[in-house]
Amino acid sequence: MTARRRWLSAAALGVVVAAGAPMALAAAGDSDGYSPQGVSSGDRTAQVRNAIQGGKARNVILFIGDGTGDSEITIARNYAKGAAGRLNLDKLPLTGAYTTYSVAKGDPSKPDYVPDSAATGTAWATGSKTYNGAISVDAYGKPLPTILELAKRNGYRTGDVTTTEVQDATPAVLGSHVVNRDCKGPQSMSTCPSNAKENGGAGSIAEQLVQTRPDVLLGGGKKYFDQTVQGGEFKGQTALDQAAKSGYQIVTDGQGLAKAEKGQPLLGLFASGNMDLQWTGPAAKTGGTEPSTCKPNAALPASQPKLADMTRKAIDLLDSRKRGDKGFFLQVESGSIDKQNHAANPCGQIGETINFDDAVAVGMEYARKNPDTLVVVTADHGHTSQIIPGDVTSPGQTATLVTKDGEPMTINYATNTPGQSQEHTGTQVRIAGYGPQAANVVGVTDQTDLFRTIGRALTLR
Amino acid sequence: MTARRRWLSAAALGVVVAAGAPMALAAAGDSDGYSPQGVSSGDRTAQVRNAIQGGKARNVILFIGDGTGDSEITIARNYAKGAAGRLNLDKLPLTGAYTTYSVAKGDPSKPDYVPDSAATGTAWATGSKTYNGAISVDAYGKPLPTILELAKRNGYRTGDVTTTEVQDATPAVLGSHVVNRDCKGPQSMSTCPSNAKENGGAGSIAEQLVQTRPDVLLGGGKKYFDQTVQGGEFKGQTALDQAAKSGYQIVTDGQGLAKAEKGQPLLGLFASGNMDLQWTGPAAKTGGTEPSTCKPNAALPASQPKLADMTRKAIDLLDSRKRGDKGFFLQVESGSIDKQNHAANPCGQIGETINFDDAVAVGMEYARKNPDTLVVVTADHGHTSQIIPGDVTSPGQTATLVTKDGEPMTINYATNTPGQSQEHTGTQVRIAGYGPQAANVVGVTDQTDLFRTIGRALTLR
Repeated sequence: MTARRRWLSAAALGVVVAAGAPMALAAAGDSDGYSPQGVSSGDRTAQVRNAIQGGKARNVILFIGDGTGDSEITIARNYAKGAAGRLNLDKLPLTGAYTTYSVAKGDPSKPDYVPDSAATGTAWATGSKTYNGAISVDAYGKPLPTILELAKRNGYRTGDVTTTEVQDATPAVLGSHVVNRDCKGPQSMSTCPSNAKENGGAGSIAEQLVQTRPDVLLGGGKKYFDQTVQGGEFKGQTALDQAAKSGYQIVTDGQGLAKAEKGQPLLGLFASGNMDLQWTGPAAKTGGTEPSTCKPNAALPASQPKLADMTRKAIDLLDSRKRGDKGFFLQVESGSIDKQNHAANPCGQIGETINFDDAVAVGMEYARKNPDTLVVVTADHGHTSQIIPGDVTSPGQTATLVTKDGEPMTINYATNTPGQSQEHTGTQVRIAGYGPQAANVVGVTDQTDLFRTIGRALTLR
Repeated sequence: MTARRRWLSAAALGVVVAAGAPMALAAAGDSDGYSPQGVSSGDRTAQVRNAIQGGKARNVILFIGDGTGDSEITIARNYAKGAAGRLNLDKLPLTGAYTTYSVAKGDPSKPDYVPDSAATGTAWATGSKTYNGAISVDAYGKPLPTILELAKRNGYRTGDVTTTEVQDATPAVLGSHVVNRDCKGPQSMSTCPSNAKENGGAGSIAEQLVQTRPDVLLGGGKKYFDQTVQGGEFKGQTALDQAAKSGYQIVTDGQGLAKAEKGQPLLGLFASGNMDLQWTGPAAKTGGTEPSTCKPNAALPASQPKLADMTRKAIDLLDSRKRGDKGFFLQVESGSIDKQNHAANPCGQIGETINFDDAVAVGMEYARKNPDTLVVVTADHGHTSQIIPGDVTSPGQTATLVTKDGEPMTINYATNTPGQSQEHTGTQVRIAGYGPQAANVVGVTDQTDLFRTIGRALTLR
């Protein structure tokens, strides 16, 4: 209340104010010592102005929370930090919203109001709208240069990190070009015959990622690297053989990751498919659940690194201040926020949001020490989950979780029939930034503008 | 594509880019000549920096879109402007999100994750969290000074404008203090006995609004002014008599509004209850609707002013540059965005969002000519409506509208059983600003911070 009293005398009106009481909650701040009350009750004009820098960035770290719109952010904050607490991703100084629609296959003049991660990934990675399912190809199926490819061409080191299969849409769009997102390995090309190696194409997502050769490529999806290459130089060998023969050091657990050194590009494959979830808890169901709390996932292999570990290692490997070296471009995705929203699994969803938020803290810690770093934290598209009152009967599936505040929060999943995969939504989503060029996230922009913002920050040509 | 080509050679990678084609949609801009492509593809760092001014404001115009979160904004934009178009409210230069939770009655340490417009109105109007249903009283029922009351005390002229009943939560919180939002007129006090005039209280919302005496009070809710005062000086007369005898000029239609002049405070009551809707169209239903378009509401009385008309007149009456005069505080609400979201009526909801957006244009036009004006555009809380794919079976109610793009958009209402009122949601919502102190909306703040931002802008004491 102190800051408020400086300029407002509550007693001026002659009404009684229960001093401080209704603000006790907000004033409590959160456990890491950040007090939203303290920060935001003063004039932040100078703080926001000081956060604006134009100019060039040496490094860019892009964090993508898959399907992590404002509703998903609020759910994770309420559960893990309390309603008045703050996530790490809340603390980026410059904020806006961007539109995420995709377009029709073969006709980019027609919007599709509910996009998928392939189309939205292509939008931020290439600056062009495309159809749902497209991996860095345009509405007609033609390859588009990606921000990672351009960064590499311009002499930057590059990294691509995810908690899902590295062939999943978000990591895929940075280093591959296929007409269908399902074409993850050399023996999974049925929907992309024109891209198949045996037909003279550039190959599956796994093959193309190795060919694009980011310096760091971390996530799950080993099973697609175990598939056999069907054409070209590596025909008859596995995609993993291709990676090794192309110079990649390959690690498959946290210990291996920790030991990896600079000098060779690094491929980390920590799961056959998607990496395991951090948290478990009750699935949302018709009629709701008992008030519950989330638990650590007992089935999570201790050998799997967390997203923060992968982010820290990626930065360590990419960061070089050797004379003449340029900086780096790094993308870090928490992909199962989306997948668990599809599954109406709130603890899975929240656990992966916190996994994401911990990684954001690592990126921000680096950026604060290296202020020539642009950090952007955003989502690719909106999703289903909504916070609703606990005393109504949703037609969908709900779960009630007891938050850090000790209070019940009911989460609703109702964009598809119970039992079916819940759907993406078409809402605009939050984008937040820190560092050079971050002011370009403020206001209302389109997802394709992010490609230009990053390109401008790194002066890509 | 021009701006992009300046720094990015698409051909550098040797891949073929269908020049311009996938961006044709975005490049088209919208009908008022605003091209999001043109504005946002260049570096906006200087533009954002220039939008930041600290200092004092002479005037504050606060626009509240009731229940108008990012999803509702996107729905209205897609329908009325196209996916790549821009609303007027999109064009405010500084943006953020704020948290909206309320607290338990009698225990402000306990958050309630799904707030109502009474608690959220009290939050932005008084700077304190309270319980759902509370009209500018704290969690214990004690009155809290409001930003309008403080502005008035500090010599500012004040206005309070809505499309709902003027006794509805949002307009009510600025000039009344009752323990239950339903206590709208002197004969509707059953849930607020302690506030009733006959019990020595300050009276109903209608009575208290007159007693607070904003210079301009416009909206619906005449029926509560037709109720008979039960105690005090005006006992036995109607609340409307009370208003007239207190010096209010009273108008009941657009013609009357147009003729109103400065000198006396103005009470405009343009409907018995809420004002009528701008648009009609198919209600969302189980199983969905045929693709449809919205129509003007044929039942809308021609005599009812639009929100833009009320806003323009309010500004005309409040604006004074006479020597020694201070500026004004004006609140403008589009309240039926929320009510039609509750009713699962997408055209009603969108029509009121456009009604709101047209009013925002009036406010921004004034502010651009009078740059000592702070404009804030925000919502009070999130709501139900979501954009989902057209080919899924929602468990709730959906409607499919054909947008300005000529494409179908499916809107889902599924937070309560079909036939029941749809529910608010607990998501953080957008806040946007222009003018002195507007930088304080950037980042993640709480709704209570808005009270402090406005108070600081007007240097209220």
